[in-house]
Amino acid sequence: MTDFPKKSEAIPIGVDAMGTDSGPEALVAGAARALKTGVRAAIVFFGDEAVLRPFVARHAELAGAAIEHCPGVVAMTDKPMHVLRRGRDTSMWKAVEAQKQGRVRAVVSGGNTGALMAVARMQLGMIAGVDRPAVTALWPTTQGRTVVLDVGANVEASEHELVSFAIMGEAFFRALTGKKKPTVGLLNVGAEELKGHELIRAAARVLKEADPDMAFKGFVEGNDISQGTVDVVVTDGFTGNIALKSAEGAARLVGGWMKEALTASLLAKVGSLLMMRDLKKLKQRIDPSSVNGGVFLGVNGVVVKSHGGADEHGVAAAISMAANLVGKGFRKEVAETAALVFQRAGKALEAAE
Amino acid sequence: MTDFPKKSEAIPIGVDAMGTDSGPEALVAGAARALKTGVRAAIVFFGDEAVLRPFVARHAELAGAAIEHCPGVVAMTDKPMHVLRRGRDTSMWKAVEAQKQGRVRAVVSGGNTGALMAVARMQLGMIAGVDRPAVTALWPTTQGRTVVLDVGANVEASEHELVSFAIMGEAFFRALTGKKKPTVGLLNVGAEELKGHELIRAAARVLKEADPDMAFKGFVEGNDISQGTVDVVVTDGFTGNIALKSAEGAARLVGGWMKEALTASLLAKVGSLLMMRDLKKLKQRIDPSSVNGGVFLGVNGVVVKSHGGADEHGVAAAISMAANLVGKGFRKEVAETAALVFQRAGKALEAAE
Repeated sequence: MTDFPKKSEAIPIGVDAMGTDSGPEALVAGAARALKTGVRAAIVFFGDEAVLRPFVARHAELAGAAIEHCPGVVAMTDKPMHVLRRGRDTSMWKAVEAQKQGRVRAVVSGGNTGALMAVARMQLGMIAGVDRPAVTALWPTTQGRTVVLDVGANVEASEHELVSFAIMGEAFFRALTGKKKPTVGLLNVGAEELKGHELIRAAARVLKEADPDMAFKGFVEGNDISQGTVDVVVTDGFTGNIALKSAEGAARLVGGWMKEALTASLLAKVGSLLMMRDLKKLKQRIDPSSVNGGVFLGVNGVVVKSHGGADEHGVAAAISMAANLVGKGFRKEVAETAALVFQRAGKALEAAE
Repeated sequence: MTDFPKKSEAIPIGVDAMGTDSGPEALVAGAARALKTGVRAAIVFFGDEAVLRPFVARHAELAGAAIEHCPGVVAMTDKPMHVLRRGRDTSMWKAVEAQKQGRVRAVVSGGNTGALMAVARMQLGMIAGVDRPAVTALWPTTQGRTVVLDVGANVEASEHELVSFAIMGEAFFRALTGKKKPTVGLLNVGAEELKGHELIRAAARVLKEADPDMAFKGFVEGNDISQGTVDVVVTDGFTGNIALKSAEGAARLVGGWMKEALTASLLAKVGSLLMMRDLKKLKQRIDPSSVNGGVFLGVNGVVVKSHGGADEHGVAAAISMAANLVGKGFRKEVAETAALVFQRAGKALEAAE
């Protein structure tokens, strides 16, 4: 027990270790890395015990970790409805169930996003006034970090949903960073009020009226995500997914070019040796695993979706975020802010309709 | 006339020199730069002669350029309808009119996109089967370049429009690069067929059926834009605008980090001196002006929209693209391919409805 001198303070976190693209090994190694880097968590793995046991045994940090055997696995191609009906023996279901039962306080999963959303929604329920969970993404900026939501591939979003994304995103950012008045923008194609979809314009009107306390900055554009113009960028799941994946692709492209330039000539190679330390820091900044971990906002619990292909660094980041949110009382923060604002937003939405 | 030894071969190109963010000086300097770098064009400027004359006089390359005086200017905030009704004395209208009259073979403008589209559509007409012009964007990839369309901020696109964007984008890429069978993908949130908007799925079905000659690769995601997975990425104008601006922002972010790393320490500074030549090349690759120039596909003519804030390098790239497209007979290419496929697509669309 020397690894957990203050085990009583550690936050119990359930890790759904199955059903990812990168395999259970990455999830186990990620949990070990999170503990090693100081995350105060008591890990409970959910999955095939025979598969997990040997991986867990490799890491001294995981001496105190538990494994709950689950025979079933949710496949990436399973329809959410199928999992709700026939997936009760899966690691995903069992991990979320453990949170419902209070045995863990957060769940991290790298599995099927749609299924995880359905399972979380059914077992944990939604906070009052929210119809559908939104998935957050963190994106690095020149100023720090931006939260983008929804990136959950919910194909369409109504005005009411865009408004609730804004409210939840603001509360999430506050819980994550401690900033009292995070700034919020709606993603659109132009800064002028006349542009964009009618429902985005309607959501903007509602936000202005309904939440005078929110630092709502109106419309932002795609490039504002990386510029950090606002703390919270609100959009529908389709657009959010495409915006972030486009940004990821571009970051990787420029990173690749840079690598080429650094080894393009003998002089360049000598030069890169000299700046090795600074380049290492740069590499860490570009590393997408540092921003891994999409939080499901709106469910009554803490559910963090790790990227299906995340390596141990990415998984560690997701587990660290889960522990951080539990510690900061983010559920309460979201629920309370939302309750306050939804009342006003409801009136403004009715007036807009 | 020494600057134009084979002036008879030069392609007459109209440059709308007014109504941009960066001012007429950048457009004039860009035209001079295009000629200097070997573009075989005879430039005709449209705009306020008193403003343009001194700028033009600065560049020896522009000794043979003409100026057509136009008293009016289209403002960035003008509504397209207003310009159609009352903008016949503007530089934008006159430049497009000159193409209609056959006095120039292409037009480059950095002005109001919506107005330019309306003016081009009204004066030049549309090719058969296309309802609305699409605007292209070039994006650099690990493999070369990708064309993304529509990025014209057309807010929504029907199945029929997505199909026509694919057909025109393919023909455009062929004219631009000479590649016989450009690959085409539809931008979506996931590679599995079950994801995304219904109308994107319908467009995919139509493309598969209607154009057996097209190398249609199905759905692609945001990151595929920079990866160069396909040559032509098809999407609606709202999503395309946000995807490209998000990518631009991310590229700029990583570029900024790199600059920081290169000057972070004394060693890094010495290192960057050593790799100066390779870093210069890298800078050129990242420079967004190298991909400036959105082409209006679907109009009966060659109209290239330069970014409103483009500097002379960006303007030169747009003029070079215009000359290139005229030389390659791209109008004919688009019209002929489109005619062939629309017939089949029309049947498939009817069947899908």
